[in-house]
Amino acid sequence: MFSLLTATRTAAVAVCPAVRNPAFNGIRTLATSIVATKSTHAAKVTPNAGEKVLTLETMNPNLRAMEYAVRGAIPIRAEALKEQLKSHPGSLLFKQITACNIGNPQQLMQKPITFLRQVTALMEYSDLLSPGMIETTRKLFPEDAIERARHNLSFVGGTPGAYTHSLGIFEVRQNVARFIEQRDGFPANPNNICLTTGASGAVERVLDMLVSDPSVGIMIPIPQYPLYTASLTRLNAHAVPYYLQEEKDWQLSQADLERSLSESRANGIDVRALVVINPGNPTGGCLLESNIAEIVRFCERNNLVILADEVYQSNIYTGTNPFVSFKKVVMQLGSSVELFSFHSISKGMIGECGRRGGYYEAVNIDEQVMGQLLKVASVSLCPNVSGQMAIDVMVNPPKVGDPSHAQYEQEMDLIYQSMKRRAKKLAIAFNSLPNMSCNDAQGAMYLFPNIELPKAFVEEAEAKGQAPDSLYCMQMLEATGISVVPGSGFGQYPGTFHFRSTFLPQEDLFDDFIDGFKRFHLGFMQQYSTKN
Amino acid sequence: MFSLLTATRTAAVAVCPAVRNPAFNGIRTLATSIVATKSTHAAKVTPNAGEKVLTLETMNPNLRAMEYAVRGAIPIRAEALKEQLKSHPGSLLFKQITACNIGNPQQLMQKPITFLRQVTALMEYSDLLSPGMIETTRKLFPEDAIERARHNLSFVGGTPGAYTHSLGIFEVRQNVARFIEQRDGFPANPNNICLTTGASGAVERVLDMLVSDPSVGIMIPIPQYPLYTASLTRLNAHAVPYYLQEEKDWQLSQADLERSLSESRANGIDVRALVVINPGNPTGGCLLESNIAEIVRFCERNNLVILADEVYQSNIYTGTNPFVSFKKVVMQLGSSVELFSFHSISKGMIGECGRRGGYYEAVNIDEQVMGQLLKVASVSLCPNVSGQMAIDVMVNPPKVGDPSHAQYEQEMDLIYQSMKRRAKKLAIAFNSLPNMSCNDAQGAMYLFPNIELPKAFVEEAEAKGQAPDSLYCMQMLEATGISVVPGSGFGQYPGTFHFRSTFLPQEDLFDDFIDGFKRFHLGFMQQYSTKN
Repeated sequence: MFSLLTATRTAAVAVCPAVRNPAFNGIRTLATSIVATKSTHAAKVTPNAGEKVLTLETMNPNLRAMEYAVRGAIPIRAEALKEQLKSHPGSLLFKQITACNIGNPQQLMQKPITFLRQVTALMEYSDLLSPGMIETTRKLFPEDAIERARHNLSFVGGTPGAYTHSLGIFEVRQNVARFIEQRDGFPANPNNICLTTGASGAVERVLDMLVSDPSVGIMIPIPQYPLYTASLTRLNAHAVPYYLQEEKDWQLSQADLERSLSESRANGIDVRALVVINPGNPTGGCLLESNIAEIVRFCERNNLVILADEVYQSNIYTGTNPFVSFKKVVMQLGSSVELFSFHSISKGMIGECGRRGGYYEAVNIDEQVMGQLLKVASVSLCPNVSGQMAIDVMVNPPKVGDPSHAQYEQEMDLIYQSMKRRAKKLAIAFNSLPNMSCNDAQGAMYLFPNIELPKAFVEEAEAKGQAPDSLYCMQMLEATGISVVPGSGFGQYPGTFHFRSTFLPQEDLFDDFIDGFKRFHLGFMQQYSTKN
Repeated sequence: MFSLLTATRTAAVAVCPAVRNPAFNGIRTLATSIVATKSTHAAKVTPNAGEKVLTLETMNPNLRAMEYAVRGAIPIRAEALKEQLKSHPGSLLFKQITACNIGNPQQLMQKPITFLRQVTALMEYSDLLSPGMIETTRKLFPEDAIERARHNLSFVGGTPGAYTHSLGIFEVRQNVARFIEQRDGFPANPNNICLTTGASGAVERVLDMLVSDPSVGIMIPIPQYPLYTASLTRLNAHAVPYYLQEEKDWQLSQADLERSLSESRANGIDVRALVVINPGNPTGGCLLESNIAEIVRFCERNNLVILADEVYQSNIYTGTNPFVSFKKVVMQLGSSVELFSFHSISKGMIGECGRRGGYYEAVNIDEQVMGQLLKVASVSLCPNVSGQMAIDVMVNPPKVGDPSHAQYEQEMDLIYQSMKRRAKKLAIAFNSLPNMSCNDAQGAMYLFPNIELPKAFVEEAEAKGQAPDSLYCMQMLEATGISVVPGSGFGQYPGTFHFRSTFLPQEDLFDDFIDGFKRFHLGFMQQYSTKN
């Protein structure tokens, strides 16, 4: 029960010495160093009248230290250039901005999957299913979309406008469980599945649970998707990096995992979990089953929870490296390792980024922790129903014999084949250039080419206080309108330079995109070859 | 730039002494005491093989300490009873669960606003606007919905399936700014508006910015909406409570604000902001303009940022207490006080809870902080487009002369008048009962009646280790199927007891709902009158 007076009276000065000590902070903002920002601490300032209370100095220093390069300086500059092209066409060296900084396929004209949109449209305006309208509706919508919408409406009380269960609609979670069972051949429990605001929301929630105090560390791959470093910076936890092996198609090295873990634990870091992104972002690599098994055993042996970011599981482009889920390997090995696996509607061929739908499956997680995860979810009420419905279609598409089956398959295949062609084409282009080399994309939506930047340029950038790859990418943007993300935004092996580019530009514009990049890179190298 | 080896080698044991000390923690989890849970700290446990890594003991203790009664023990029990009614009809004393625990109108059969759903449906399946389909579409959709969908599609690149700007679509923010200008008569800037995942997402983001370390305190009303205490517990900050005056229709007392602030600051708490919920949740009160002006001046004088939770701004039921925004009063006074104001599509007459749409307007906020807010938003990529579109309709409804204008107005008015009738009817019912008194709802969706619980019952509950109002509410649920939230979940003046009930049950079932409650309460009082 609540008693104000007692509670307030017993309060005392509550200042954590550690939080006050910048030196202490420095060691735990490893994540931050990836993006070259150091967290310093907020001052306790009692402002004078007229001065701001909330300033850069007083705000949460962990948020201040956060960096997220995917929507960082280069995309922000790209946005300004886009506005300039609108207001002053012809004022730049290029006609349009090519946004390769983010896996946002529909922004680049990828067509949405028709069946998915038919179902969501009917649910939105369910009057279309009423006796007075259904005959006309049938002229516009196939029977299975109508039936699916009716069915799905029946388990949300007739409307997508009400809060649902905080873990998401039970029937959708049942369909997710069936999807996982069919994928892996092992049982999945709908009560272990939680629908979320994109996979990002799922990752953030699980990291929040794991980080109990500032000594906690989470192992992350380098290069990594910067959501992980951003979240760990926010939580003031240690990002404990391990390297992916570029020379081995970005597979994990068990030796480097061991090195990273033992060094960190020797340094007093309470390492609790390991993040794996498979297929890889930004690398485009896809882990072999044998490699996954090694990782599972490593985590089991060393008491680490696995966070498997598997949002690109259907973006797979080679026969040699098929997608194998961590869940499947954990079950095959009969391992008791704790696992959270993440999936999303934003990627794959669905590409419904704007809808913000995702989920996690929790495997071997303590029952009481599951209860806590439900409670935490309930504070945010529920994931948005539109995202939940898209997940439902993704995991339960039209079946053979359904009116929409052929179209659904054809749309998915068209997108898939086109992505596969573009992935290959872009890799060939990168590998044809001097001072560049690039692994093929085995999966995901990205290439992460290695650039050997000229020494003179590296020195020039460093003199300006800029990361050399950031400066290279900014020059690329100014010259071509192509917006990519520098490798330093993801982390990379010291002394190497990369950038991440999606291969999502439209196929009919793809040659122009490649030509524009090639011209820039060749010109750039030409310029610096004369300086060296 | 990132260097793994250096970073890892310099790491040292990073344990914050304060975080290790339970006594220290006790004083700052004031918020927690509202809901009777004490945070204790996570142990650094290196589990033995086969033991779990993530347990109740090792998890983030702030999350463990969080409570959110709106979806707490009573709603969870209600869910179980609902399942029982499905599997064993007739096995309980009632035929259905009446969910009065949460403002979720469409769950209780409130009809969605047609125009809003027409626009979102057309955007979902935009093929309906194609030359081949548009003629048939016109038979099902009015012209202004078609036009609005076309217009809105034009500023999301033709699809609601792509990520948008992290603050939300610029054109939607422009419409929000116009809506605010028309409401208040003062300018609003779209760049100061940020669309979010419901108002909850907005509140959490702003609190995250404000809490820079554990000495920070945020003033909250008692009773309050438990999102605030849950978020402050998560952030390990001080909830600094002030009391709303039940005897004065829940207006704020300046004397109590002064008392609360000076006591807390004297105790070393770095009080930075004041939360006001207007119209009130759970109280149903609505602040007078003169009271708002007092609060603004108080905050200005005392260097406090104002967080104005104004999600019920269109749920207003009396002529005496109209809604006046904090923004308007700040502008009228020419105040430089820093203000965040929150709004949502989940409430009002729109009631689109499942869509998770909301926004905040930032007023007088430091420019650099605005940049940081953008960066933080970008890590979550963007708010869901479906929620953004509903906000657009809410702030920019059909105009006089538009085909949908009359229907829109009529639907809004029907819902409004019905809510107003139900609010009054429920208050009359509560006030007709012994040991109960209740302020009328001047706004919002709730009543918060005061119950004088019999002494014998209070002792009985306390002997069981339960909050007396929780036990009362649980007994109500078991007897009637009515699910409400005990006052202890919101905080209340010591020694008083309340519960929060929505007045959202359907109007044709409303008398039954009231009768069920009356029978329970009279029986309850009867039982205990004989014991006293």
